[in-house]
Amino acid sequence: MTDSTSNQMWGGRFAAGPDAIMEAINASIGFDRRMAAQDIAGSRAHAAMLAATGVISDSDAEAIGKGLLTVLSEIEAGRFEFSTALEDIHMNVEARLKEIIGEAAGRLHTARSRNDQVATDFKLWVRDQLDAADAGLVALIRALLAQAEAGADWVMPGFTHLQTAQPVTWGHHMMAYVEMFGRDLSRIRDARARMNECPLGAAALAGTSFPIDRGMTAQALGFDRPAANSLDAVSDRDFALEFLSAASICAMHLSRFAEELVIWSSAQFRFVTLSDRFSTGSSIMPQKKNPDAAELIRAKVGRIFGANTALMMVMKGLPLAYSKDMQEDKEQVFDAADNLMLALAAMEGMVRDMSGNRDALAAAAGSGFSTATDLADWLVRVLGLPFREAHHVTGTLVALAEGKGCDLPDLDLAEMQEVHGGITEDVFDVLGVENSVNSRTSYGGTAPTQVRAQIVRWREQLA
Amino acid sequence: MTDSTSNQMWGGRFAAGPDAIMEAINASIGFDRRMAAQDIAGSRAHAAMLAATGVISDSDAEAIGKGLLTVLSEIEAGRFEFSTALEDIHMNVEARLKEIIGEAAGRLHTARSRNDQVATDFKLWVRDQLDAADAGLVALIRALLAQAEAGADWVMPGFTHLQTAQPVTWGHHMMAYVEMFGRDLSRIRDARARMNECPLGAAALAGTSFPIDRGMTAQALGFDRPAANSLDAVSDRDFALEFLSAASICAMHLSRFAEELVIWSSAQFRFVTLSDRFSTGSSIMPQKKNPDAAELIRAKVGRIFGANTALMMVMKGLPLAYSKDMQEDKEQVFDAADNLMLALAAMEGMVRDMSGNRDALAAAAGSGFSTATDLADWLVRVLGLPFREAHHVTGTLVALAEGKGCDLPDLDLAEMQEVHGGITEDVFDVLGVENSVNSRTSYGGTAPTQVRAQIVRWREQLA
Amino acid sequence: MTDSTSNQMWGGRFAAGPDAIMEAINASIGFDRRMAAQDIAGSRAHAAMLAATGVISDSDAEAIGKGLLTVLSEIEAGRFEFSTALEDIHMNVEARLKEIIGEAAGRLHTARSRNDQVATDFKLWVRDQLDAADAGLVALIRALLAQAEAGADWVMPGFTHLQTAQPVTWGHHMMAYVEMFGRDLSRIRDARARMNECPLGAAALAGTSFPIDRGMTAQALGFDRPAANSLDAVSDRDFALEFLSAASICAMHLSRFAEELVIWSSAQFRFVTLSDRFSTGSSIMPQKKNPDAAELIRAKVGRIFGANTALMMVMKGLPLAYSKDMQEDKEQVFDAADNLMLALAAMEGMVRDMSGNRDALAAAAGSGFSTATDLADWLVRVLGLPFREAHHVTGTLVALAEGKGCDLPDLDLAEMQEVHGGITEDVFDVLGVENSVNSRTSYGGTAPTQVRAQIVRWREQLA
Amino acid sequence: MTDSTSNQMWGGRFAAGPDAIMEAINASIGFDRRMAAQDIAGSRAHAAMLAATGVISDSDAEAIGKGLLTVLSEIEAGRFEFSTALEDIHMNVEARLKEIIGEAAGRLHTARSRNDQVATDFKLWVRDQLDAADAGLVALIRALLAQAEAGADWVMPGFTHLQTAQPVTWGHHMMAYVEMFGRDLSRIRDARARMNECPLGAAALAGTSFPIDRGMTAQALGFDRPAANSLDAVSDRDFALEFLSAASICAMHLSRFAEELVIWSSAQFRFVTLSDRFSTGSSIMPQKKNPDAAELIRAKVGRIFGANTALMMVMKGLPLAYSKDMQEDKEQVFDAADNLMLALAAMEGMVRDMSGNRDALAAAAGSGFSTATDLADWLVRVLGLPFREAHHVTGTLVALAEGKGCDLPDLDLAEMQEVHGGITEDVFDVLGVENSVNSRTSYGGTAPTQVRAQIVRWREQLA
Repeated sequence: MTDSTSNQMWGGRFAAGPDAIMEAINASIGFDRRMAAQDIAGSRAHAAMLAATGVISDSDAEAIGKGLLTVLSEIEAGRFEFSTALEDIHMNVEARLKEIIGEAAGRLHTARSRNDQVATDFKLWVRDQLDAADAGLVALIRALLAQAEAGADWVMPGFTHLQTAQPVTWGHHMMAYVEMFGRDLSRIRDARARMNECPLGAAALAGTSFPIDRGMTAQALGFDRPAANSLDAVSDRDFALEFLSAASICAMHLSRFAEELVIWSSAQFRFVTLSDRFSTGSSIMPQKKNPDAAELIRAKVGRIFGANTALMMVMKGLPLAYSKDMQEDKEQVFDAADNLMLALAAMEGMVRDMSGNRDALAAAAGSGFSTATDLADWLVRVLGLPFREAHHVTGTLVALAEGKGCDLPDLDLAEMQEVHGGITEDVFDVLGVENSVNSRTSYGGTAPTQVRAQIVRWREQLA
Repeated sequence: MTDSTSNQMWGGRFAAGPDAIMEAINASIGFDRRMAAQDIAGSRAHAAMLAATGVISDSDAEAIGKGLLTVLSEIEAGRFEFSTALEDIHMNVEARLKEIIGEAAGRLHTARSRNDQVATDFKLWVRDQLDAADAGLVALIRALLAQAEAGADWVMPGFTHLQTAQPVTWGHHMMAYVEMFGRDLSRIRDARARMNECPLGAAALAGTSFPIDRGMTAQALGFDRPAANSLDAVSDRDFALEFLSAASICAMHLSRFAEELVIWSSAQFRFVTLSDRFSTGSSIMPQKKNPDAAELIRAKVGRIFGANTALMMVMKGLPLAYSKDMQEDKEQVFDAADNLMLALAAMEGMVRDMSGNRDALAAAAGSGFSTATDLADWLVRVLGLPFREAHHVTGTLVALAEGKGCDLPDLDLAEMQEVHGGITEDVFDVLGVENSVNSRTSYGGTAPTQVRAQIVRWREQLA
Repeated sequence: MTDSTSNQMWGGRFAAGPDAIMEAINASIGFDRRMAAQDIAGSRAHAAMLAATGVISDSDAEAIGKGLLTVLSEIEAGRFEFSTALEDIHMNVEARLKEIIGEAAGRLHTARSRNDQVATDFKLWVRDQLDAADAGLVALIRALLAQAEAGADWVMPGFTHLQTAQPVTWGHHMMAYVEMFGRDLSRIRDARARMNECPLGAAALAGTSFPIDRGMTAQALGFDRPAANSLDAVSDRDFALEFLSAASICAMHLSRFAEELVIWSSAQFRFVTLSDRFSTGSSIMPQKKNPDAAELIRAKVGRIFGANTALMMVMKGLPLAYSKDMQEDKEQVFDAADNLMLALAAMEGMVRDMSGNRDALAAAAGSGFSTATDLADWLVRVLGLPFREAHHVTGTLVALAEGKGCDLPDLDLAEMQEVHGGITEDVFDVLGVENSVNSRTSYGGTAPTQVRAQIVRWREQLA
Repeated sequence: MTDSTSNQMWGGRFAAGPDAIMEAINASIGFDRRMAAQDIAGSRAHAAMLAATGVISDSDAEAIGKGLLTVLSEIEAGRFEFSTALEDIHMNVEARLKEIIGEAAGRLHTARSRNDQVATDFKLWVRDQLDAADAGLVALIRALLAQAEAGADWVMPGFTHLQTAQPVTWGHHMMAYVEMFGRDLSRIRDARARMNECPLGAAALAGTSFPIDRGMTAQALGFDRPAANSLDAVSDRDFALEFLSAASICAMHLSRFAEELVIWSSAQFRFVTLSDRFSTGSSIMPQKKNPDAAELIRAKVGRIFGANTALMMVMKGLPLAYSKDMQEDKEQVFDAADNLMLALAAMEGMVRDMSGNRDALAAAAGSGFSTATDLADWLVRVLGLPFREAHHVTGTLVALAEGKGCDLPDLDLAEMQEVHGGITEDVFDVLGVENSVNSRTSYGGTAPTQVRAQIVRWREQLA
């Protein structure tokens, strides 16, 4: 958040007095320079429109357009001298433009204000992030689909309360996250559609008396339409908040998966082996592998939701239209976006690289009488027992097996029949974990056939 | 959150020992009884499907369906005895059903688990709230449209930094909130579409081996389709979080409007008079009117976003599938939903009842040289002055007027021409606040024609 | 948060119109009745002071004092009829007092306002909760001390990144939480000392011209002194926020311990067995034990920090003095306090009841070459190797043991000497996990002697 | 939060593959370099102690100590080349030390780990911030005391609900904030005392078998004592959370004052004039002054509490001991600390520079029948009327004055006596706003004598 290595107190730093304090709290060029490309794109569209509507001359517009490209190339090449005295990216660009093209630069700000300009820049920036999140989610989903396909029929324990409940398949577990990240994708796309209205032309807050064509600038910048109320256009930060909300939920999903990877990597679970690239080791314990990337991903939900909290609190109770409080919007969104993209990329890399330990998964799946539910369901379905009685019979058989130190399929038929006379040889068809998962063919169930059907559906959807 | 008036310490309350503590922390019937209607609707759909697919007999299904209606009527009539020992609404309903119809009640739970049952109940409940929010928003928007229409051409100050910047119209200001609440409506509708997938049939987490028809229950309950992954179906609380996110942004909008109403009601502003119904008075200061409802509405964003924070934090890092932590979801959503609906209703009532003080608004609009921008724009547009020079001339004229203790339109032409010789009689066309707002006819601008066009567009959209 | 089971939309509920909406949003008696005892205590102190200073007569004061006790007994007996029309607890009590003692009741409100009254009531309520939290923390610490003492020398793995790092002792692990809850206790006590100033006598906001004695009421109510600025006294909710902050950090500690208990209870870890009282079972898997209480405790940090968020957001940007927004303070604090006390009590019960599985802990402690650090330290300490070389030698030996499928103590001396000739028989003294923990005798280290010393220190401190 | 001006998507940035992603998410040198001075101080103390206890030689310790000073001077001079490959500040410093002094550098890490090292560095950094906040608060309080003294007897309206309630004094209003910032100061000091325990010597998590002297390092670094449990010492981030909590409450106070300054600066209120240094103007409206600094300060509570939220969420549910998630602690605290200090400095500057508009304040104080309460109190106190009757009489008189378009003191005695015959000439003593504030002499009341007494008390306390 700062690149200073200084440890001096602010008192010292502000010894220069009130002017230094005001500059430090007021100037935004330290961060809004990240919107340089958006600022210049917006200005180019505005200048072209001003010429098309006759507000400025074609030659001025041409000079402005060309001059702005020069500024952009200077910034991209790292040759631009940003000035804190010029406060923000808008003033920095405009001042440099004037140096390059002279007085004509002054006409660029006709029928525009910093209020609609910053709203436009920031919207374009956020829209880019929505697109980046879209791409990051698609890549992550593809990585999960590959894992799901490879292990569509690998059995593993399905947990509730971190206790083994029923066997599921590795593929099924991966596909649960595909659903979550799929919803994130859907939310991101809805947010993009909703926010894609152009503030440019709202001017300070009231619109303008110049005969501008807001539809033209909107179209040039890829917006669907101009924003329909100029007061709202400069006061609105919903697009930032909706991005932060969607990013927070996505980061929460990442935290759940990351938690599982940390637990699964423990010596006690050993369900998964992460690649060296996303782990760190120990110089004296060469066999040790710390799931650092997973832990850092787990933490990102805090950071991203923290940004959401910050901006919600900033916007609370602000009267219309623009208030300077709103300058606090950018750093929160920048930081959240950077960290979301980073977390998505790291998770994709980890998923791509990781190896499920099929044997350990299978061994764990079979422990804990995980097919007791299958047995009870069989008693209901085949013998027609009422639910409660089926549960009672099952509980008795589990206790019997536990007493003998064996698992349910290890009981022999006679032992079972002592508990309930109606039990037949067929019962063994549902007791193994493979049988269990294969039988759960209800729509969306864990059976490999169901898992594979969902993989196909998702592949088509993403195609 | 509790109706106890007790002030005894928990130590005392828990003197009964660990069992009392466990019951207090574990039982959910104290709050999940609010989902009774949803629980019974879900169970009725499930029973009908079980019969249609031959899993249970038609007569059992009929007895179950009828018995559940009896339970519902008992609950609605307030005659139902909720039992904490039975923990939750599901067990309470099922136990009572058994009393009414006997053993057949036990067949209802076939191919189902409390995990998919609670997810279904809660989704149905949240869906109802999304519909209620939709209705509340539409009503509020209609009230704002009525205000906007009545005052489409009333001038008032447009503020930035709570300083007068340019004149706007009352109608334009109202329409800014229409845009905000319009986006809220759009978010609510997207959320509803996204969440409308049915968890029922996911069973504990893995699906089931019973030949159920998940499409049938989904349809019966008004869902668009069954959820596609059983692990996700019981682990997902995105629908609750997305509701809370959308509700938080909506409540933020309410807080901004409420803040304006509080400020506008002050003796110093007097922009608006709230009705007695949404104010409170003082027995000794009969003229005093406290904007209590506005203040309480302003506060609701804290409560609703607090619930969002709570549930985000609960869900952070939870491994799949169901964990008991997730039981903390309901009270947060119940409270946030209640308060959102209340705040929307109160705001709608206040907007309906309030009277803009047209004279005070107009007087304020004209102060502070609020048409200085119009003058500068005129100098650019008509005289072709560069932007910066136009600003300089304007600043000089404002200083001149300020020195004379008059407003810009009160300067005479000769005085103006001393500052810039090119100024003509036409300049007075833009100097009055009426002229100013009438001139801002850019799309979405504050001109009454623009405001009325937007009112028409919104009326059509809501029709 | 509500005990209604109704699912009707608010639109329906509010069909009665604006008055019903205003009553619903404005009245606080639904929750502030929990402060009845505090309200009456405050009023009794106020009346006694008014008489002592001659503002009211002794006979009036006596009638008021006696009447208030009658009201209190009615409330405690559940015979009091709370009225929503009377809005809040203050008006409810005063109205009933008037029924009981007649006109003299009207004199109670002399030199007082609802603003200082509610601040006093709420402070008294929060102070009670600080005391309850104090007691709950002490009880929990005692339970942890008992566990620590019982297992002061039980070895278990010390984790970083949930990977085995070095052996520690069970007692040492328990004592880590004693430190955390000890800091919570210290924070709670600081908060109590800071908030213990009495608002009574601040009146509406400006103080009063009656010759009251604020020191007298402060003392009667157990406050250290009267609050020193009347505007601040009615505007301040720091005491509530500081309680919520301290409660949040405490709940975070609880969430960490709860997470460990959930993981430790898994079939894969089996480090701990929770009692049946704080677990739930399964009718068909009798061996299964779900750590429900631990999961619910883990979730409470969300709820409590959500309340903190809510109140912070409510207070943000409120001008002085009292604003109605502040009425949103109570439900948040009530809910957070209830849940903190419940979580502390449940955790204490779980800790008391739980059994560490000494064998499983020891087995896990010895795996993963957990004494590699001890070996490296020995090479540095005894042979004088530089740190980096010691690490290199250790890594080689670990790789050797891993290759042989044995642990470090299972290598024979000759094998070790091939890697580094200086190694002697003495090295085996540090290689066992028992040796390892016994050797870490630095202050605060994991050696049983250190653990026992800390237990003694804490017992003395709490005595 | 980043100094990149790049707008390329992360996908592009990470084209280099997984290693670039891992480095981006894992390395902390980009921000933890801010702790360089603390890191070096900690290492110097550690080396000195290792020599004193005979663990390393005096000559090694001397070389290390001297070398570290060289490293520090390089960093402070901006000549140090930070390396991302070396991940963090600890490795960067140690690697450079080795270049300077050779192999002896390797001995520095004896009996230490990065876990206790980073905890120590971060604690020292946070402790510096607590000291900086202390200084910033004291300076702000002094500025407020100066304002309070200057305007101890200036009358202004006391608001509730932003409606005039009773007259207060400017000095009294300023002193309300002195109380708030005084509590902040007290919280900051408590936090400092509580956190001042040294983690150094906890090593990785279990303590060490080297014969170190933790008391010696603790003392050298200004800690009160070593932390008493090594597991807790490396797992604890309470000190950061408590700083963030206290900073959040302080920032909330700042937001309230900032809100008032924004409202008071409006054309409608004109209660205060901010200096040009903390405002921004408009090139075309020279009379306009935007309270930018106040608005930015108002927003900081969002940012700081956002950081609090972030770290709370990161810490939720983390098992002991160190997890990499905890690396997310620093940026949040750095950003919150920077912004708190900046906001305190800016507020101090604004308070110092601002001018209360005594006439506007007085005029507003007298409007709205603000002394109605004084009249009612007089009726109770002097005529002995019951409270309710006094209210009734007052309401009648206010209505009478309102009808006549005058204020209460403008009614003549005869008119008053028609409403209540007992009223005498003396009543006029309480009706003026000056009389009103002078009469409120209860402890902590708004009377100038009370205000001045509090100023004296605070000056003594800060001396």
